Amino acid sequence: MEQFCFGIDVGGTTIKIGLFHTDETLMKKWEIRTNKEDNGAHILQDISDAMKAEMEARGILPEQIRGVGIGLPGPVLPNGVVNHCVNLGWGMVPVETELSELFYNRPVKAGNDGNVAALGEAWFGSGKGYDDMVMLTLGTGLGGGVILGRRIVTGSHGAAAEVGHMPLYPKATKPCNCGKTGCLEQIASATGIVNHTRELLETTEIPSSLRGKENISAKAILDACQAADPLAEQVVEDFTDALGRGMAVIASVCDPQIFVIGGGVSKTGSWLMERLKKSYDKYVFFASRDALVVPASLGNDGGMFGAAALILS
Amino acid sequence: MEQFCFGIDVGGTTIKIGLFHTDETLMKKWEIRTNKEDNGAHILQDISDAMKAEMEARGILPEQIRGVGIGLPGPVLPNGVVNHCVNLGWGMVPVETELSELFYNRPVKAGNDGNVAALGEAWFGSGKGYDDMVMLTLGTGLGGGVILGRRIVTGSHGAAAEVGHMPLYPKATKPCNCGKTGCLEQIASATGIVNHTRELLETTEIPSSLRGKENISAKAILDACQAADPLAEQVVEDFTDALGRGMAVIASVCDPQIFVIGGGVSKTGSWLMERLKKSYDKYVFFASRDALVVPASLGNDGGMFGAAALILS
Repeated sequence: MEQFCFGIDVGGTTIKIGLFHTDETLMKKWEIRTNKEDNGAHILQDISDAMKAEMEARGILPEQIRGVGIGLPGPVLPNGVVNHCVNLGWGMVPVETELSELFYNRPVKAGNDGNVAALGEAWFGSGKGYDDMVMLTLGTGLGGGVILGRRIVTGSHGAAAEVGHMPLYPKATKPCNCGKTGCLEQIASATGIVNHTRELLETTEIPSSLRGKENISAKAILDACQAADPLAEQVVEDFTDALGRGMAVIASVCDPQIFVIGGGVSKTGSWLMERLKKSYDKYVFFASRDALVVPASLGNDGGMFGAAALILS
Repeated sequence: MEQFCFGIDVGGTTIKIGLFHTDETLMKKWEIRTNKEDNGAHILQDISDAMKAEMEARGILPEQIRGVGIGLPGPVLPNGVVNHCVNLGWGMVPVETELSELFYNRPVKAGNDGNVAALGEAWFGSGKGYDDMVMLTLGTGLGGGVILGRRIVTGSHGAAAEVGHMPLYPKATKPCNCGKTGCLEQIASATGIVNHTRELLETTEIPSSLRGKENISAKAILDACQAADPLAEQVVEDFTDALGRGMAVIASVCDPQIFVIGGGVSKTGSWLMERLKKSYDKYVFFASRDALVVPASLGNDGGMFGAAALILS
């Protein structure tokens, strides 16, 4: 009898659902709205209903479902309880137990969305074929996931891969969102790129096409760098130096085969990966030199794929 | 039928051998000389002979041996081949296969001695009872081991836990043994403590009882710090700041429950652990704050215990 599983990625606006064959084929993907009424009390029921409807349409029986993987925007404790998802209105929710009870008592495995997206890249995306991978996602902050032996390293407090808060700048004074100073993501993130540009515009005379513009985006800065803008060039130099060094530091702890770079910034193209790799090579211990640096390939579907991998792994 | 295993720690001068019950009890430990003649060609035969003699004396049969774990002073590839042990005179040696053939074809598992000593602390020493542990060993350099889920993280090039070469000082200019600059172990190691003391003696006027002395050891510097020597106090402050920050960086990658500090320096006592913990707390991401910092407890036997754990795990 054929076996299947579901991969669910719960976001603040939509929930992505994927039906997978256990041979790792994606059969269908679709989205439902995230119903945040009553502090998100209907979310798990909505997910269960959506899965049941699809099974009925295809004549799939409950015993053909190996399990349901689910990625959530909050910390997931080892016992499958989510410890607050601010974006969903959730407090402590025993997701694995509750969704299983709603859904034919099938096995449910929950994970943090950042870690789960990394697992998705490792199983179905740019990290496919590599056992040990680190994903770094550049956005408002710097998130990611550490995958060793094709499994998520969650850490004893769920705080593994919190690499954005790596204290690489002990002499920095500007506070990070986490309350400390000198965190890597203050420089190595989309926000960091924008802030650093603003600083250089204010404090230097370096010529730049960005002067006088409002709401400069990270993408605009990267584009300016490719167009040989001197100030944007300096910003990208500082950014790649910081992130490359951070990657070398990560390698000194867990020595992955490949770094996968996610987030909007990574869509800029191969030139940015080449500059990151060059910076990595400058700082890394010789034994880890041949690690690859590549962009993520699953985009917003990474979480859904990774959630399925929670069951397939 | 009772089951047993052997844990072997191969050093450049002696080989430690432990016979363990599979209930994790150490039955006996002893040492043999490391015979480095003929490029170490007799070492594995000597080990096999020693184990066989002990089994005969106790009436233990080959089928009662679950396996042999062996720690070696060199990089061990995933296929059980050792890639050069300079201290033993070895080139490429398929240790697992060769020792198994010499020893009733019983299973053999090999590991790098630093990683294996960390596994020993995790199973039998200061890390007992914790799944996720990082060991840091302060000596000529800064070595260690990353243990997650009670197993060694070796890294894809065998270079996990090369934390001594974490590039934390991008502006440093003095070369490290690895050929790069700015590595953590240049400050956070016994050698680093001594070198930093020499520097401060030469370049500052800070009063110190160490002035005019030759061959100052790391232990003498730590003792002077406890005796309120101002220069030694500065050295220890810089050392604990560096290592505490390094530990916070490690936590941002793998978030362990406990750090175990090994090497001669760690025998100084609890005051040094307290200072390291204080520095760690200053730098670490809040979620990982409650990690413990404790001294290693197995001393030179860590490798032998860890080698047994390779079989028990």
